[in-house]
Amino acid sequence: MSNKIEVNPETAGMGRRRFINTAALAGLTAGVAACTEKPANAPATAASGPAAAPAAAHTDAANATHLKPGELDTYYGLWSGGHNGDMRVLGLPSGREIHRIPCFVPDALVGWGITNESKKIMGTKPDGSLRYTVGDTHHTHASYKDGNYDGRYAWINDKINSRIARIRLDYFICDKITELPNVQGFHGIFPDKADPVDPAINYTTRVFCGAEFHIPLPNNGKDVDSPEKYRTMFTCVDAESMEVRWQVLIDGNCDLTATSYDGKLAATNQYNIEGGAHYEDMMSAERDACAFFHIARIEEAVKAGKFKTYGDSKVPVVDGTREANKDPKTALVAYVSTPKNPHGVNASPDGKYFICAGKLSPTCTVIELAKVLDWFDGKSEKLDNAIVAEVEVGLGPLHTAFDGRGNAYTTLFLDSQVVKWNVEAAIKFHAGDKNAKYVVDRADVHYQPGHINASQSETKAADGKYLAVGCKFSKDRFLPVGPLHPENEQLFDISGEKMVMLADHPVRGEPHDFIIFKRELVRPKQVYSHDDFPLAIKDPKESGVFRNGKKVTVKLTSQAPAFSLREFKLKKGDEVTLILTNLDKIEDLTHGIAIPKYNVQFVVNPLETASVNFVADKPGVYWIYCTNFCHALHLEMRTRMIVEG
Amino acid sequence: MSNKIEVNPETAGMGRRRFINTAALAGLTAGVAACTEKPANAPATAASGPAAAPAAAHTDAANATHLKPGELDTYYGLWSGGHNGDMRVLGLPSGREIHRIPCFVPDALVGWGITNESKKIMGTKPDGSLRYTVGDTHHTHASYKDGNYDGRYAWINDKINSRIARIRLDYFICDKITELPNVQGFHGIFPDKADPVDPAINYTTRVFCGAEFHIPLPNNGKDVDSPEKYRTMFTCVDAESMEVRWQVLIDGNCDLTATSYDGKLAATNQYNIEGGAHYEDMMSAERDACAFFHIARIEEAVKAGKFKTYGDSKVPVVDGTREANKDPKTALVAYVSTPKNPHGVNASPDGKYFICAGKLSPTCTVIELAKVLDWFDGKSEKLDNAIVAEVEVGLGPLHTAFDGRGNAYTTLFLDSQVVKWNVEAAIKFHAGDKNAKYVVDRADVHYQPGHINASQSETKAADGKYLAVGCKFSKDRFLPVGPLHPENEQLFDISGEKMVMLADHPVRGEPHDFIIFKRELVRPKQVYSHDDFPLAIKDPKESGVFRNGKKVTVKLTSQAPAFSLREFKLKKGDEVTLILTNLDKIEDLTHGIAIPKYNVQFVVNPLETASVNFVADKPGVYWIYCTNFCHALHLEMRTRMIVEG
Repeated sequence: MSNKIEVNPETAGMGRRRFINTAALAGLTAGVAACTEKPANAPATAASGPAAAPAAAHTDAANATHLKPGELDTYYGLWSGGHNGDMRVLGLPSGREIHRIPCFVPDALVGWGITNESKKIMGTKPDGSLRYTVGDTHHTHASYKDGNYDGRYAWINDKINSRIARIRLDYFICDKITELPNVQGFHGIFPDKADPVDPAINYTTRVFCGAEFHIPLPNNGKDVDSPEKYRTMFTCVDAESMEVRWQVLIDGNCDLTATSYDGKLAATNQYNIEGGAHYEDMMSAERDACAFFHIARIEEAVKAGKFKTYGDSKVPVVDGTREANKDPKTALVAYVSTPKNPHGVNASPDGKYFICAGKLSPTCTVIELAKVLDWFDGKSEKLDNAIVAEVEVGLGPLHTAFDGRGNAYTTLFLDSQVVKWNVEAAIKFHAGDKNAKYVVDRADVHYQPGHINASQSETKAADGKYLAVGCKFSKDRFLPVGPLHPENEQLFDISGEKMVMLADHPVRGEPHDFIIFKRELVRPKQVYSHDDFPLAIKDPKESGVFRNGKKVTVKLTSQAPAFSLREFKLKKGDEVTLILTNLDKIEDLTHGIAIPKYNVQFVVNPLETASVNFVADKPGVYWIYCTNFCHALHLEMRTRMIVEG
Repeated sequence: MSNKIEVNPETAGMGRRRFINTAALAGLTAGVAACTEKPANAPATAASGPAAAPAAAHTDAANATHLKPGELDTYYGLWSGGHNGDMRVLGLPSGREIHRIPCFVPDALVGWGITNESKKIMGTKPDGSLRYTVGDTHHTHASYKDGNYDGRYAWINDKINSRIARIRLDYFICDKITELPNVQGFHGIFPDKADPVDPAINYTTRVFCGAEFHIPLPNNGKDVDSPEKYRTMFTCVDAESMEVRWQVLIDGNCDLTATSYDGKLAATNQYNIEGGAHYEDMMSAERDACAFFHIARIEEAVKAGKFKTYGDSKVPVVDGTREANKDPKTALVAYVSTPKNPHGVNASPDGKYFICAGKLSPTCTVIELAKVLDWFDGKSEKLDNAIVAEVEVGLGPLHTAFDGRGNAYTTLFLDSQVVKWNVEAAIKFHAGDKNAKYVVDRADVHYQPGHINASQSETKAADGKYLAVGCKFSKDRFLPVGPLHPENEQLFDISGEKMVMLADHPVRGEPHDFIIFKRELVRPKQVYSHDDFPLAIKDPKESGVFRNGKKVTVKLTSQAPAFSLREFKLKKGDEVTLILTNLDKIEDLTHGIAIPKYNVQFVVNPLETASVNFVADKPGVYWIYCTNFCHALHLEMRTRMIVEG
């Protein structure tokens, strides 16, 4: 039953730089070999190695990233937290982490997963314990209006348990989590930028989610032995209600997701159209695909009842498989071919192109959206005519960012480089103009880059100022801290012709994707309102212990340096709900509350209310104390909980 | 039963800077008034406000903190993670967070609290679930040899559940956690620096722990209504075994802990010698204390059987209360008086003094260790003769650092300043030389500083290069991110006469204490050895599914880009132990493993082995995948777990 793979581990003792290339290439030989037929005079291979930034340029530019004490960053970055399961907020260009937003995984600081309010968002089992305590976030994107971020929401995926979380960008908190039915390995995520039909809706109302792993449908333990019958789905979630609107059954595994500026198309690049269960099978076909979803048609089909449901799920699922979508005029999905196992699909800020990076092929494929729509409209005979360029850029292309000046920046995982290339020049080259020099610049990065993004890159307002590169290995770039290395987010100045590296930023593994936008695009609120909380205790006089048999409610307020109750008594076995409102209404005056031995700790920000349930099962005196330094008498800020035996 | 405190919340709408002072002072009026009789010509009050660093000085110095890409920091910082419950590793002077070390609280990235190995260290309930998932770390200190850090261990406290964790500084991981008996609110922590008796033991063998909250003994629900009978304890933990060696029953609440360089004395500053339950009572006495523990005598008393035990605990407890320790010649504990509610006690690097900061008093109290020993030896009539200085430094003194050149740096919480003062000049001033100008410099910080530390400050090798200040409020110093603000760790260059502020570093709340040391003092290891793990699978050929009735062991290895098993089958209801060894032995080649819907995620670093238990209760196909980007074919690195229905 168990097939074993024998991999030669004889890489110990090799030089570091040599190892990186060897290890990253191991197992790839066959895959890459098929793709490395170089076009004659390809500029990519003609480029003579990495362009080192002049020392003087570094010094000037790099000083710009060192903010003087008190100076504010000019850009926000929203970073996925990988298998930390959180979202992070960075300031740029400093690279400083200003905030972490818990969503899929408990957070002991704020009490995420401890308070009743956060548990309700995270989801619980029938016994009240958390359904999941792990997560694996990959991609984060924010809501749009008029093609730019509007500061309402961001979304982030959990690949392990196929969940999508929404972040409110006023309070910078997670307010909704939805678990997608019928799928496994939900990976790519992207909000739409407009409605496909109603031009008045020029903002995000849907979020699209691509699932990676193909599974039996329903996944109930039957039909497990026929991977060729497994399928995956592309899912649409309502941006406001966070309900799942519909799903599309498809061939192949979804990787990333992208959406058009006109709202008409969403896409996912795909590997494993072979439906293979082993990795050799997953890369046996010469070409995979970028699947384009015709949103208006899909929603018409759902409306017309042309859908199925699977298992316990009520979500309508339309058929987007190749077999069912051969006729362009009725097709819901169009599969544009790409070289095998592409990685990443990104929408250019001019709204014209989606670019798939080749991963196993040293190329980027440029797909023109107008030509995909032509195919859907029956105006184009061959769908692959939408491919307007497929040019060599280097080894292991993964993701692409844009500067708004017509240039693309693609990470080269195997080369440990970023390549800057001009999209229109690439199109000319592909059309036959072999003098078109599309590669503009190359820069070494450290090491093995995955995602890349530029300031405002995936908006119409791409400004070509900063570029961040998520390097998967940091190796020797930071002080050693034992076996687990940080990742290395490298920052570049891309305002000139040459990329100039500014700084290395270590980050706890493993940020995948991130977005960078101007600070004026969000309008954060720093003090809550009582109205945000149904349980708010608006006056300290409402504090007290309210008993109904064994059910006890303790109402408590905080105002530096004291809790409203000095002490309170419980009886052993009481089922307690403790509600705490922070009545301090000054920005940054957060209190915390901990109950020793009762596994309770959470914070209440200005005017926030939170609650916890616990059973008073341990008799004794328990000094409840403030955990968030609030005042010169913070240490003395306590209340005494007495549990009578 | 419930006493309510009415605090005037009318601070909304006030200017920010004005608020800070008002809020921080609220409730302090009575306490401070008693202490603000200023000595004539006191330099502290004569100093004309904060000394602004010259702009040019800032520019030069600040550039030093911006490392060029690839440049390494020169110092490590170990930072407590507050109610995040972790330890953090920073590089300085850049201020970059390189690592977080989970200890008291689960960590989804590494699988801390998920793997069997980490659960064993954290502690579980009889049903196998974690005993605690919250923590509140305050103080972190490292092991010593010859008065300097020796790179073996660091320790950190959990105040909520009175636990102490040990961190191995080779692998930068937590390897032991001990819950202290008989105490609540364990707060201050410090390793000894030498044995009190055996001069050959010139390194750390004990760790001292001060507990803050006084409780009934035993704390079983009886005697709850007589706070005057509550007591707390000072605890000694063995540095190697992490067993609790002994405890000392004392009067008053322990705050911080300090140890002498000769190993003879440990100390804790104390508030609430009144034994009050409400905060007014806690500050009713004019003076509190710094309690000094005579380690050799305590250990002799334990050896001689002069101890009690409490409740279920077998730990010997000696009597260190005032009543029982009146005779200096037999005393185990000496209570040197300090102004009321002191905060922080720090040992000067010359080995001579312990300095208590006044908090409610605008003073620092300098206690000469030789004179405390004189009292124990019957050579000093009055214990308080050990106080060689008690000088005014500013409002709200909390903690003190040292530069090795005779200067102390004390945080002033209420003034939002750091004051640099000369210890010997302060002693002269206290002795009557009113011309002794002990205040050297003042610097504004942003805002409300708590802990402070300088590079190598609490070692004999204090080098006076960098100073970090943990500011409890950041207010407007970073881009707004909603109601929860980061704290602000400010970095200063203290190599000159004037302090020069270098940078603001945001940190997730709430680092309390931290240490900063030269990078050459640790010798990190970046690849594990199979010998570290009893369950190590040394060859992929050992992989497989091994069944014993319903008990199933799955042995799996990882080598990029594949797991050793391509798929494996389980039956519904199987009780599974999955063991994974990472056979990649190259630095930084970490793999992760996630099982969808089974709440499993952990990482295995090079040559690490970890295991998890789960019940295969959900039939279906589950694609186990690698969560830590490892290779160009990382996305394809999966194994298929089939649970037959």
